[in-house]
Amino acid sequence: MHPVTIDGENLIPGGKSQESTIPLTCKAGVVSNNGPNYKLTIEDVQVPTPGPNELLIRLNTTGICYSDIHYMLEDLALPRMRDYGVRSPGHEGAGVVVALGANVTNWKTGDRAGIKPTWDTCGKCDLCWGDMECHCKGVIPTGLKVPGTYQQYIISPARYTSPIPDAVDDFSAGPIMCSGSTMYRSLKVSALQPGDFAVFTGAGGGVGHIGIQLANAMGLRVIGIDTGAEKRALCLALGCEAFIDFSSSVSVIDEVFALTHGLGAHGVFVTATSSKAYADAPKMCRVGGKVMCVGMPPTGTAFVGGEPMEMILRGLSVVGTLTGSLKDTNSTLEFAARGLLKPIVEKCGLGNLPQAVEKLRARKVGGRIVVNFNA
Amino acid sequence: MHPVTIDGENLIPGGKSQESTIPLTCKAGVVSNNGPNYKLTIEDVQVPTPGPNELLIRLNTTGICYSDIHYMLEDLALPRMRDYGVRSPGHEGAGVVVALGANVTNWKTGDRAGIKPTWDTCGKCDLCWGDMECHCKGVIPTGLKVPGTYQQYIISPARYTSPIPDAVDDFSAGPIMCSGSTMYRSLKVSALQPGDFAVFTGAGGGVGHIGIQLANAMGLRVIGIDTGAEKRALCLALGCEAFIDFSSSVSVIDEVFALTHGLGAHGVFVTATSSKAYADAPKMCRVGGKVMCVGMPPTGTAFVGGEPMEMILRGLSVVGTLTGSLKDTNSTLEFAARGLLKPIVEKCGLGNLPQAVEKLRARKVGGRIVVNFNA
Amino acid sequence: MHPVTIDGENLIPGGKSQESTIPLTCKAGVVSNNGPNYKLTIEDVQVPTPGPNELLIRLNTTGICYSDIHYMLEDLALPRMRDYGVRSPGHEGAGVVVALGANVTNWKTGDRAGIKPTWDTCGKCDLCWGDMECHCKGVIPTGLKVPGTYQQYIISPARYTSPIPDAVDDFSAGPIMCSGSTMYRSLKVSALQPGDFAVFTGAGGGVGHIGIQLANAMGLRVIGIDTGAEKRALCLALGCEAFIDFSSSVSVIDEVFALTHGLGAHGVFVTATSSKAYADAPKMCRVGGKVMCVGMPPTGTAFVGGEPMEMILRGLSVVGTLTGSLKDTNSTLEFAARGLLKPIVEKCGLGNLPQAVEKLRARKVGGRIVVNFNA
Amino acid sequence: MHPVTIDGENLIPGGKSQESTIPLTCKAGVVSNNGPNYKLTIEDVQVPTPGPNELLIRLNTTGICYSDIHYMLEDLALPRMRDYGVRSPGHEGAGVVVALGANVTNWKTGDRAGIKPTWDTCGKCDLCWGDMECHCKGVIPTGLKVPGTYQQYIISPARYTSPIPDAVDDFSAGPIMCSGSTMYRSLKVSALQPGDFAVFTGAGGGVGHIGIQLANAMGLRVIGIDTGAEKRALCLALGCEAFIDFSSSVSVIDEVFALTHGLGAHGVFVTATSSKAYADAPKMCRVGGKVMCVGMPPTGTAFVGGEPMEMILRGLSVVGTLTGSLKDTNSTLEFAARGLLKPIVEKCGLGNLPQAVEKLRARKVGGRIVVNFNA
Repeated sequence: MHPVTIDGENLIPGGKSQESTIPLTCKAGVVSNNGPNYKLTIEDVQVPTPGPNELLIRLNTTGICYSDIHYMLEDLALPRMRDYGVRSPGHEGAGVVVALGANVTNWKTGDRAGIKPTWDTCGKCDLCWGDMECHCKGVIPTGLKVPGTYQQYIISPARYTSPIPDAVDDFSAGPIMCSGSTMYRSLKVSALQPGDFAVFTGAGGGVGHIGIQLANAMGLRVIGIDTGAEKRALCLALGCEAFIDFSSSVSVIDEVFALTHGLGAHGVFVTATSSKAYADAPKMCRVGGKVMCVGMPPTGTAFVGGEPMEMILRGLSVVGTLTGSLKDTNSTLEFAARGLLKPIVEKCGLGNLPQAVEKLRARKVGGRIVVNFNA
Repeated sequence: MHPVTIDGENLIPGGKSQESTIPLTCKAGVVSNNGPNYKLTIEDVQVPTPGPNELLIRLNTTGICYSDIHYMLEDLALPRMRDYGVRSPGHEGAGVVVALGANVTNWKTGDRAGIKPTWDTCGKCDLCWGDMECHCKGVIPTGLKVPGTYQQYIISPARYTSPIPDAVDDFSAGPIMCSGSTMYRSLKVSALQPGDFAVFTGAGGGVGHIGIQLANAMGLRVIGIDTGAEKRALCLALGCEAFIDFSSSVSVIDEVFALTHGLGAHGVFVTATSSKAYADAPKMCRVGGKVMCVGMPPTGTAFVGGEPMEMILRGLSVVGTLTGSLKDTNSTLEFAARGLLKPIVEKCGLGNLPQAVEKLRARKVGGRIVVNFNA
Repeated sequence: MHPVTIDGENLIPGGKSQESTIPLTCKAGVVSNNGPNYKLTIEDVQVPTPGPNELLIRLNTTGICYSDIHYMLEDLALPRMRDYGVRSPGHEGAGVVVALGANVTNWKTGDRAGIKPTWDTCGKCDLCWGDMECHCKGVIPTGLKVPGTYQQYIISPARYTSPIPDAVDDFSAGPIMCSGSTMYRSLKVSALQPGDFAVFTGAGGGVGHIGIQLANAMGLRVIGIDTGAEKRALCLALGCEAFIDFSSSVSVIDEVFALTHGLGAHGVFVTATSSKAYADAPKMCRVGGKVMCVGMPPTGTAFVGGEPMEMILRGLSVVGTLTGSLKDTNSTLEFAARGLLKPIVEKCGLGNLPQAVEKLRARKVGGRIVVNFNA
Repeated sequence: MHPVTIDGENLIPGGKSQESTIPLTCKAGVVSNNGPNYKLTIEDVQVPTPGPNELLIRLNTTGICYSDIHYMLEDLALPRMRDYGVRSPGHEGAGVVVALGANVTNWKTGDRAGIKPTWDTCGKCDLCWGDMECHCKGVIPTGLKVPGTYQQYIISPARYTSPIPDAVDDFSAGPIMCSGSTMYRSLKVSALQPGDFAVFTGAGGGVGHIGIQLANAMGLRVIGIDTGAEKRALCLALGCEAFIDFSSSVSVIDEVFALTHGLGAHGVFVTATSSKAYADAPKMCRVGGKVMCVGMPPTGTAFVGGEPMEMILRGLSVVGTLTGSLKDTNSTLEFAARGLLKPIVEKCGLGNLPQAVEKLRARKVGGRIVVNFNA
């Protein structure tokens, strides 16, 4: 046992903290045989010790994101986990601070804390100083270059850890670290104004269903595009004023125009990852409209933009945004704290993490699977 | 002769107005046999009579724009002049008001006046009310649906005619109506800030050389891309802090990065119309950079945008902008009035208009040819 | 009778138009003995004939605004109605176009139309071109320099008349022309973002109760300040998340801070006209907060601002905004059309206009009195 | 001697670093008898040792700011130096990093470094995350709660120290830490656009003369207000297109209007601290104009703002801004590195610091006195 006493508590969802000391080992989802035939198992790993300026966080939850699978598959042109000695992916965790490294003064044990896709940044460049730090050259991706949130006890730099407000439970806070802040960021950068029409492609998906809630809370008029009765019901319940089923629609584009007084949408948020979603998005826009790129299709499979003449005559914009900044994440959490954003999650215990990942890999997950480390 | 007396005068460039009455006919560049073998001749045409709310303007100058050639060639998917009974193209004219139609109260004869590519708009839609009127569905393009500025005496709606300040001569004012306001618009919409790096592709061209002057006046750090010693000298003289010759450069993109502290440009203004200029533009941008689409390549020859992943990871934007609004045109003229913008023009008399047009069609024109109706 | 046939109809609230021709005279509220002892009576006045570019509108409703009383009292440093031969004040009218002057092409009889406090502007200045036309030097105030909406048949320039959408009835449209667009403008200029705290002083008043509805629709968190159980109930029903009764509160400022996590409001919209409301507003703001000036206290009775040191240390802004532009009015009507804005009105027949005005003068009116010309 | 070796060098202005080790004591301007009769002397003080995450900086220069005098006089309602055991004021220093505390990874000895008025902030609040950190509740003011730049060797938190680019010498960098970034901030927040008219009151003063250089570099049209032939010459040399001498002017306000086409200024930057400067500023504005509060008059001596009616009718804004953020400071340094900003300084050796301070106290300093620690 580490000789560190936990004087805080895990408010949500675990209630009063059961243990009073930090264990030497903890459970973690660990990958081996990285590549197409990777293997993910639950193992005991050593609980790390926080260095100076670092926090040790005991996670209550972690979301499972498709990026985790990419990291394990090594199918994208990205650095490889194994080259950094990292065995656990995961980048959307929520828990409680259980130990402070040296020199940490603005956190205390017991504080609730979230882990984002960006673990840390250089802190000393114009991007870091300007709310653009997720694009910093010195970004350290969580679960890729440092151990991720598939491991229950995890280190996080105090300066870049997100506080979680009381009113947001950890099953919500996890996905907000990634999908939530990503949608908030995209909506913020779009600069759409209350009353504007916002179309979401992939509206019923893990990212899209968060987008429609946030957009609704921002006073936008939301049109969801997805397929199936279930998605339709979900989208309408979450605040869409209209839903278009792309499977049964003769022309999605025509329907968007019909719903927007014949003018088209002010913004189209592409949370889907299909080539067609990206190809159609500019066509759904009104004059001056914006295509916001959120979903990440595999390399070489999709293109967004258009002929210059078309961009010019219609005054269109195509804009890419990444995950939210520290500030964005905080703002997103505030919407959740007010009850205006509630990610839909499928909960599972840590023991079922490998199966949950495979389910996601098979594209059979509706919203977001969130692992409960305490179950 | 019309019984209308001119009580104003043509300050610039014609000095004191020679005639005191309006002639019944005037000279005009008139197209016949529209299509690939169109013929442009100088003919006498009737001087029109201004209707209610209209001005009759006697032009001193008109610029020649490649769009005029498209209109005559009928090689783009656009309405045809002939279907509107229009025989004279041209859309960048500068002159003096010589007669007022009924109900015109905020203009007087003698006022200097400019004609823009957009002759009039509906005046009653959100775009018209919001500085976006050039995108209005009711736009009437000058020289396409109404007689253009190849005709010396031309009608213009009082509400949409641009006043020309004293300090701007008509040889400058002409091209400002089109190229000038177009570049101003693009710079305004880009929202680049003083100190930001702005790259212009086609920097030494008719539009580009205006862009670099305006960008320089706005405190941007301007990098020009073009080719040849002459263009280099021009660009540096007009305010570029660096010039890249795309013919001799091993890598234009690398050079842009080298000139921008290794970060790339904040904005790339594509005034060139080549496929490659558009393809390379996003690659010249820094994180958060913007590709501003200005040049219009022929349909089907160019594409702007990128893979969504690229747009997202680098936080890029691709934005199309059209010619400037009435307000933009006024703002552009103010820069010219302060001596910060001076379009480079090749002057020619009206008699040489057909040859000048052919020279432009042969892509042998450096800056802008401006016709002097008084020569 | 004028020989003009009405081929449209008065959809709302009068249903199918009863008359098919325009009468020679109509009823109007007419002021005489202008000054402290002014007299307002209902008289028959001549129905005007629309000149070129003008519309003749038959009003169904007009709101009564305190400015009308100022105009009749001549108690402010303003031009005088009588010097312009104007006998009917009023500037928030809603009705239907019954005749078109010459050259009007983008309106037709039967179109629903609204009259704003600004009757017309010069149309040819930077303010007019830039959504700031209510500040144009050439502004012609309705009911001050031209006959106002206390007269049933009224002339309006086609270019500056506001179309009214079907979904908004004339009892709502009237006050939206003035109070509605004023609040929209102030909210727009404030640039507050969804989730920000907006405080309204005078929240239950004629302007304030519109502001809280719009702010709510824009995703702001609204705190209303006013007094009495009735205003409290109204404010909470219209979307305030909290209400502060200034009569019973020990410290309104402290309450604002308590409701805003101890930080203060992002924006304070002063719709009240008291000196104290303006004096307290900056103190309710958080760092970076904005005081938006809307209510107009009598000259010499109030001041807004602060010590420079205070403005600097707390990064405060004080911003004045006027009535909405043509575009703003349109945007406000769209919120109403969606059911998100519904001015509370007390209806009265034209015969009771004088009494209604006296009631307002006695400050005994809750929301807005709107006159029904058809009652 | 501390056992820390300096492996970097002091590029500017000291050239190659003379010493290779850090001394145990250094010279400092030290205050005693704080209050109206304070005494400032040069003494030997202990060189501090950097703690974790801290830098030890050997200053080459420090500017002298009137705030230093306020701190020593204790004449403002501020915390007192003595209550924090602080004996050296000063908050605009430039030097070189000579030692790193534990855990500092993104600085190295030899790096050039600047000290700002804000020594550090909490780093964990919305203001800190949003470029507003100078307003953070946890701000630690340099030279008030921690030793200031009147002491040659000074500690600074690595996260909040400003890198100085090679092209900016330390005599410029010092004042840029305070006055320079303050003016940049005010100009940035004003959102004035190239071509707009910016008036500076106190244009020839320590802050004003920096403002006019920056404004000029941003493409604004600058009008300076100050008095005397020397200031006039200075202002015109630094980029003002006009100068108004308030001593000889019949009406400064009228002159501003005459210089701005009768419309008034887009922005008035009040760097003067007189009551009259603040009272007149709104009157110099055009419709929609902004009064930017920069100069800090003593408590109770000035007021900025106006009657609500005036703010509303003219669409005015009054905005307070503080010193620049870390990002702003960096941006300001970039203008200096490009040669567009060069603070005018009066240099003096450390031995003359007390006299220099008294000279400033007597209001006899033109630009900025900057102390050379190496002289």
